[in-house]
Amino acid sequence: MAGSGEFGFIRTRLAPLARGHPAALDLTDDAAVLTPAPGCQIVAASDMLVAGVHFLKTDPPEIAAERALRSNLSDLAAMGAEPLGYLSSIAWPRGVTQAWRDRFVDGLASAQDRFGLALLGGDTTSGPGPLTISLTLLGQVPVGAALLRRGARAGEDVWVSGTIGDAMLGLAIARGELAADPVLLERYRRPEPRLELGVALRGLASACLDVSDGLIADGGHIAAVSGVRLELQASEIPLSLQARRWLQEAPGAGLTALVTGGDDYELLFCAPQDCRAAIEALGPRIGLVLTRIGAVTQGQGIALLGADGEVMETGAGGFTHF
Amino acid sequence: MAGSGEFGFIRTRLAPLARGHPAALDLTDDAAVLTPAPGCQIVAASDMLVAGVHFLKTDPPEIAAERALRSNLSDLAAMGAEPLGYLSSIAWPRGVTQAWRDRFVDGLASAQDRFGLALLGGDTTSGPGPLTISLTLLGQVPVGAALLRRGARAGEDVWVSGTIGDAMLGLAIARGELAADPVLLERYRRPEPRLELGVALRGLASACLDVSDGLIADGGHIAAVSGVRLELQASEIPLSLQARRWLQEAPGAGLTALVTGGDDYELLFCAPQDCRAAIEALGPRIGLVLTRIGAVTQGQGIALLGADGEVMETGAGGFTHF
Repeated sequence: MAGSGEFGFIRTRLAPLARGHPAALDLTDDAAVLTPAPGCQIVAASDMLVAGVHFLKTDPPEIAAERALRSNLSDLAAMGAEPLGYLSSIAWPRGVTQAWRDRFVDGLASAQDRFGLALLGGDTTSGPGPLTISLTLLGQVPVGAALLRRGARAGEDVWVSGTIGDAMLGLAIARGELAADPVLLERYRRPEPRLELGVALRGLASACLDVSDGLIADGGHIAAVSGVRLELQASEIPLSLQARRWLQEAPGAGLTALVTGGDDYELLFCAPQDCRAAIEALGPRIGLVLTRIGAVTQGQGIALLGADGEVMETGAGGFTHF
Repeated sequence: MAGSGEFGFIRTRLAPLARGHPAALDLTDDAAVLTPAPGCQIVAASDMLVAGVHFLKTDPPEIAAERALRSNLSDLAAMGAEPLGYLSSIAWPRGVTQAWRDRFVDGLASAQDRFGLALLGGDTTSGPGPLTISLTLLGQVPVGAALLRRGARAGEDVWVSGTIGDAMLGLAIARGELAADPVLLERYRRPEPRLELGVALRGLASACLDVSDGLIADGGHIAAVSGVRLELQASEIPLSLQARRWLQEAPGAGLTALVTGGDDYELLFCAPQDCRAAIEALGPRIGLVLTRIGAVTQGQGIALLGADGEVMETGAGGFTHF
């Protein structure tokens, strides 16, 4: 479906991203053909990102590409899957320069290298709208081992990896609304898909997802699909040094902003209490802080509890692009 | 990644398209999880379609959806794969009405029903640009049986299914440039992915693709990737009654327009001469005309030969959206 002006671009710029991976067929065919490892299932996740909606129009092209691939990889991490490769469909804005497109491809190449991935196929076109990227990540997981959102049970613990709210602050920095901080900006620009954690949580976590819509909204998704209630302790939410500093100067609703901000791409998961020791041992092994932030109870919805045990107001709780 | 305004739409309108398929996980998770049949590989194809570029802004929403799914299925047909399901990423234009979106989903449902498919996952969002759809079709094929573009050898025959150029005429009708004809319009609106043919060509065809960029451009792709030359006989190109009638009244370049027009979604394939009888027997069995239109020779490129054996002028030969 690629227009003829695109064939040269695919051959010279995209084909190298296939790295000779046998599934990619050098990007000369209508589809990729790949084989999961014996005993494995295929995991497939598609994301669509629109310039000005999911990333800033001022984001450098290589950052837009990196974020797209990293955030989509995060979906595989949330399922406990190992990535196999990806398909990339891109609608370039009309009038995009070759230099801009080259930098975008450089961003894909950089993220690929970081995660040992290959481009397996896709489509490129152009249109009158903003840059629109749809990536489909393909991964694999042993049959029956995928982490789903539906398995949380009352009495279990709620855990989260890393720190929460940094990407929201990084986005504010990228928008020029907050003083520059390289760590926070990087958290927004190059989110870290928790692939190693996802794999390690197979057999431990009863429910898992990645925090993309915000801790409260995503916790609400687990609650809804599992038919339980999640009660999170505000004092236990892991915050970076930078977020703590911002919080000291922020208005009263500062914590709410952090727990409802999107794009953290940390893993939020539930696990039985008898897995506590195993999960606590896991963090140091993979170099990632894992924090027990609450409990699964009977009921529905999600609540953030203050020091007094009262439910804190978190508003609609959903970071929405729509 | 779906904005919170989208969760209701996914639950009420998209989740039914998952039809309870186990791989779709009711569309509640970050990814689909599916298992190919024993001895099979996964085939994955992504296409991106932009309103006003790949379909007309005046196309009814259900037609846009049907065309998107059918043309993407055609990529699987070209590989000899059987479809397993699909992921759908949609960026709605801002201000799109609920009625419009419902009709779009109706179109997906209609195409699904026709091909026994289920929606397995994806993403929905909205943006300032035109409707942009990226579908990823997942299918399966026995290990090593996928039809590729690279296997054509000098001395083989070139074949094509169905008739060529009807979709180009149908598009002209949809644009109001040509008098209405329901058959031609339907060929543009609801192209028929040749899935049964693709499966039947396993072990027969040495190279295969679907005609999306135009017969000449796509034949050129086989030639380039296989390192051969394709010589097609103009007199053998299969044309519908409607196309023949149009040709009688068309200017001199009429045939060129038909063989360079896009979106036919017929299969163009090469096969050894000793497969002729098998291929000739295949057509009646699957109810599809298969026509031998030329020969694979040594050399490069593609040529359309007139009755006098002279190479006819077909211009750049590529239907380009770009």
